[in-house]
Amino acid sequence: MSIFLIFALSKINYARTLIYIFHLATIPAIFAGAALTATSIGITGKVLAEIGKLSAKEGQIIIGAAVLDDILGIIVLAVVASLVKTGEVQISKVIYLVISSSAFVVGAILIGRFLSPFYVQLVNSMKTRGQLLLVSLIFAFILAYIAQVIQLEAILGSFAAGLVLAETEKRSELAEQVFPIADLFVPIFFVCVGAKTDLSVLNPAIPSNREGLVLAAFLIVVAILGKVVTGLAVFSKEKLNRLAIGVGMIPRGEVGLVFAGVGAASGALSPATDAAIIMMVISTTFIAPPLLRLVFKEPTGSPQSVSSEQ
Amino acid sequence: MSIFLIFALSKINYARTLIYIFHLATIPAIFAGAALTATSIGITGKVLAEIGKLSAKEGQIIIGAAVLDDILGIIVLAVVASLVKTGEVQISKVIYLVISSSAFVVGAILIGRFLSPFYVQLVNSMKTRGQLLLVSLIFAFILAYIAQVIQLEAILGSFAAGLVLAETEKRSELAEQVFPIADLFVPIFFVCVGAKTDLSVLNPAIPSNREGLVLAAFLIVVAILGKVVTGLAVFSKEKLNRLAIGVGMIPRGEVGLVFAGVGAASGALSPATDAAIIMMVISTTFIAPPLLRLVFKEPTGSPQSVSSEQ
Repeated sequence: MSIFLIFALSKINYARTLIYIFHLATIPAIFAGAALTATSIGITGKVLAEIGKLSAKEGQIIIGAAVLDDILGIIVLAVVASLVKTGEVQISKVIYLVISSSAFVVGAILIGRFLSPFYVQLVNSMKTRGQLLLVSLIFAFILAYIAQVIQLEAILGSFAAGLVLAETEKRSELAEQVFPIADLFVPIFFVCVGAKTDLSVLNPAIPSNREGLVLAAFLIVVAILGKVVTGLAVFSKEKLNRLAIGVGMIPRGEVGLVFAGVGAASGALSPATDAAIIMMVISTTFIAPPLLRLVFKEPTGSPQSVSSEQ
Repeated sequence: MSIFLIFALSKINYARTLIYIFHLATIPAIFAGAALTATSIGITGKVLAEIGKLSAKEGQIIIGAAVLDDILGIIVLAVVASLVKTGEVQISKVIYLVISSSAFVVGAILIGRFLSPFYVQLVNSMKTRGQLLLVSLIFAFILAYIAQVIQLEAILGSFAAGLVLAETEKRSELAEQVFPIADLFVPIFFVCVGAKTDLSVLNPAIPSNREGLVLAAFLIVVAILGKVVTGLAVFSKEKLNRLAIGVGMIPRGEVGLVFAGVGAASGALSPATDAAIIMMVISTTFIAPPLLRLVFKEPTGSPQSVSSEQ
């Protein structure tokens, strides 16, 4: 919970800083701040597995925090994207959105846990091919629709569906069947985000672009420092490599791109802000793996961690 | 090859009959005739497996003929759809299209067989997730693009890619990864075809609809008789259940729907003709399984085939 609170506070501070320094409007600032919160489990998880640190205390904290981060991040995205639709930030509406989106996710998980035996029974009794995948996709689409109806982002619903399905006994079988679909759509997602991004707004030769560049540089520095500080602030009686925890959470990966994508699609982000967020996502994703290897090697330096590195 | 020739001839006769009796324009007539040629391996294969006849001589002939049928059908579709674009049937163009589409499929298979070791090597050397699926999809998209460029239907290219990939040693691994994607898209395909079909044009209460209804009835009768006669005409010295071969080829299934879909999308088919083809596809697909069990039980009637039926 301490991590959770630090994140919530840091997000508000990020947004406040962006408003003061860059004179960004409130909503783009909140969007950029929210994008900074994301943590890509994929990148860090892979590196941790490679250096044999996935089951170390630090690895567990990183993974746990990253999952919490994703939940919190998607809720923030739902709130921010909904605020964009009206264009103004009313405290009452923010409170409604935070409560409704949190209630939605927590409610989906609780009801989902209660209903999961029926889900497994339904899947097992169906006499068709692809029954597991189709029932799961229908479930995800229904939750996405419900989220849309209560004025949240559809992505919050499908994310909640994923959290529920990950708790069922069909988990690994479903993951296996979802992988090919992800392999099909993930490259399309990355190409679409890339193709929609106008990187020329970061060209330093044009004076009017310089503010966007400064914003990008600021976001990158804050993205790295923010997580490192968060890691150092972890409360624990155990001896921990706190630097490694912070570094492990640096990559924003695909989660950050979802923020940029939703922000740009809803018209909340200017091309310069959008490009700055994407630059931040790319930098943090590329810088984290070598940094992570570095900070994990120094304090332990045991032969075991070296040998398992290849 | 005898089956191949009978099919080619029967298709021309179907189209000719439709033009004479129903005064259909040439292209819708060819489309309807072409849709009659399709054979859905899925339905018949499943029934044959259930009654333990998949490896029987008759089962092998049905499967072989259905595969040939699919290749021929897709080539006919490519030719017809291309004719629709110009709107007129020129003998020289028909000859060009038949030659180019046949050459395309045969060429793709021959070149594919030559290149498949490099394909397997490429897939094995890639260090990413989903490499087999992505390389295969890219290959299918490239062939679809080439088909489009030489004025054939894109579906011919992806179909040829499927034929080539089915020959490689990655066949079963790829099939496993493609199943979830098919499970995702196949229901969408069926829903789209269904939602686009205006079944009210088959309402007998409206006099102007009756011609469409007669066409649907005619297509259904011809669809059943045509395949049964084809089956009876199989040349072979062996003692064969020729009726069963004909019945086994009755279901038009998804292949017939692809014809209706491409025909309607290209504007070649009127709503009545389109609905009549879809009625034919639905009827033949539903009527075949019980008929197939019936004709297979009567002549053999051995306890083995009965016991393996459940």
